[in-house]
Amino acid sequence: MAVVPADRLAARAARVRSHLAEAGLDALLVTHLPNLFYLTGFRATAGAALVTPGQLILVADFRYRAAAEAAVSELADRTAARLWPAPRGIDEAVADALRSARTARVGVEGAHLSVSRFEWLTRTLQTSDEPAAGQVRLVSTERLVERERAVKDDFEIDVLKEAGRRLSAVAPLAASFARAGRSEREVAADIDHAVRRAGFERPAFETIVASGPNSALPHARPTERALAPGEAVVLDFGGVYGGYCVDLTRTVSVGKPTDELARLHQAVAEAQAAALAAVRPGALASAVDGAARQVLERLGLAEAFGHGTGHGLGLEVHEEPRIGRVVPGQADAVLEPGMVITIEPGVYLPLTGGVRIEDDVLVTGGGCELLTNVPRTLTFHLA
Amino acid sequence: MAVVPADRLAARAARVRSHLAEAGLDALLVTHLPNLFYLTGFRATAGAALVTPGQLILVADFRYRAAAEAAVSELADRTAARLWPAPRGIDEAVADALRSARTARVGVEGAHLSVSRFEWLTRTLQTSDEPAAGQVRLVSTERLVERERAVKDDFEIDVLKEAGRRLSAVAPLAASFARAGRSEREVAADIDHAVRRAGFERPAFETIVASGPNSALPHARPTERALAPGEAVVLDFGGVYGGYCVDLTRTVSVGKPTDELARLHQAVAEAQAAALAAVRPGALASAVDGAARQVLERLGLAEAFGHGTGHGLGLEVHEEPRIGRVVPGQADAVLEPGMVITIEPGVYLPLTGGVRIEDDVLVTGGGCELLTNVPRTLTFHLA
Repeated sequence: MAVVPADRLAARAARVRSHLAEAGLDALLVTHLPNLFYLTGFRATAGAALVTPGQLILVADFRYRAAAEAAVSELADRTAARLWPAPRGIDEAVADALRSARTARVGVEGAHLSVSRFEWLTRTLQTSDEPAAGQVRLVSTERLVERERAVKDDFEIDVLKEAGRRLSAVAPLAASFARAGRSEREVAADIDHAVRRAGFERPAFETIVASGPNSALPHARPTERALAPGEAVVLDFGGVYGGYCVDLTRTVSVGKPTDELARLHQAVAEAQAAALAAVRPGALASAVDGAARQVLERLGLAEAFGHGTGHGLGLEVHEEPRIGRVVPGQADAVLEPGMVITIEPGVYLPLTGGVRIEDDVLVTGGGCELLTNVPRTLTFHLA
Repeated sequence: MAVVPADRLAARAARVRSHLAEAGLDALLVTHLPNLFYLTGFRATAGAALVTPGQLILVADFRYRAAAEAAVSELADRTAARLWPAPRGIDEAVADALRSARTARVGVEGAHLSVSRFEWLTRTLQTSDEPAAGQVRLVSTERLVERERAVKDDFEIDVLKEAGRRLSAVAPLAASFARAGRSEREVAADIDHAVRRAGFERPAFETIVASGPNSALPHARPTERALAPGEAVVLDFGGVYGGYCVDLTRTVSVGKPTDELARLHQAVAEAQAAALAAVRPGALASAVDGAARQVLERLGLAEAFGHGTGHGLGLEVHEEPRIGRVVPGQADAVLEPGMVITIEPGVYLPLTGGVRIEDDVLVTGGGCELLTNVPRTLTFHLA
């Protein structure tokens, strides 16, 4: 895996620091691991960072000492960075680091930190013997790092492009695995194996292989059900490459497709094309969603499209921006160059089955660029 | 996947209800998805349940309506259960359900619920127009469901035994994949494929294939490094079967093992045998850990064993009880019949490499029963 260049890490931390003052904070405690990786290049199953205007303190335990030391030495060229060991656990060390930094208002990542950890930290900081510690106040914040992550830098875009190329190469294999008589689980296992062989660290989520009636369930899990001729199979799979997630869906027919399946597939392909055409800087996410929805409404399939049109991709497989209808109380995202999103309309009819087509795109200065590139025709092989 | 029998679900809910009164609660809001599955048999990526002394309310959105309806109808034979639809999101529906249930003190699962969701629910319930809603008070709780999950019922034990048998069959395959010249990632991909072919829904965690110097890192991720003759390779893999996790580690030698590797392997095998012999009802978890640690201390390897001896297995791959040293402020677990735990001592020497051996056991009335059954000798094949 390519190492994130130190100047990109420094630029990311600088942007997050610019939000501290706006939010009236002296520091941000980063506990969400994808955010930690984004800011430090340190990837682990436990750890935290304290970002202050002048410093970055990385908290890591002995299991990851070598990786943490490497990350801090990489960072140290551009920003004051230090490693804070955690011999008695991450949160004990975080409390020590917070006391030592003598910060007054510290933001925590409210969307990710658990109530228990928040209460433990608050209690521990209050009951400290050291008088100065009483002044640390933890404040719940949201999106201080996530909003930056939504717009990818050039390093991230290169990784995502390579990941998209590699996932595209898996798609024809995935289609070839979906043959009559094989179970959904067997097909899913073969897809996951192909994803790994294509150079991915792991699948980005639990692969969906949904056949026949199961294809009408947008979030079906693979079962022991055997694929039968003449039915639709939704193949939705993804991979993690260099830490970044890509995500692709094709719907195939086992044997010759029925007319109804061909009609649904055509409808979804048109809806996807309309949404793709609507992706450009300045466009509202809800307008991209609306473009797909209008096509399906016109074809009498509005009710059959029960989810949003897409989501951001990056260090997590679902991240900002959300591409869907306006939700009361939530801001509608405005697309910006550098955002990477999925476009994945689908229709789901309980008696007929379902169709979903999904590609990943980069928002560019003039519109968008496909990161996944696979024919969108309804493929099938005779059983 | 076998459906959890309704009488087991009812018994689980009854035990959790018995903790409500002790904790001074009128209800428990279950948001941690493994806990939700445990209590309702409903498995989804979103959902919640409100457990009151007389009722169970399952909150689910349209994507999982069929599964939620099936779960509620299964439950309804034994306990008053109802489905609460979530057209505007799970937490909106949870707030409605809380208002409707007119409960005063409601426990939330503090170890899992995020600060943001907790604050949103608290705020939403306070600003409700309905006067009665002002009386709902959310209280952070811990372990109300987890402590029950630690002791498996007969249905769960049957699933875990079958899972252990299936994972044991994967072990010789895993060893055969680890040959000189292949990369850690290739071997990991093959192991994952074998896990799926053995009937598992998916790997239980990211498979570890750690060779040569990487074997000295207890939490190594597979890299592009090629396996070389004469080095140790730690193979740590698991599978999810019927929702339940099992976990197995063997360390193999690529080609003929060095004397040093054979010595380390022998030491770890002895440590594991000592820990297994210490597993019995009434034993302290720290005593089981101590049994492994004493063997390694005697052999001068105490410092090289930097993690705990094991952990509980069930709907999560790491759950109660923790088998390790006593931690200040945390209760030492007492083993009970029906607990399922891993026993996995290891030694990690930066210059030599690492060895870990892991099996899964069921605590029985008289001692323990191995769920994984694979020779613990150091296997190797000539390159």
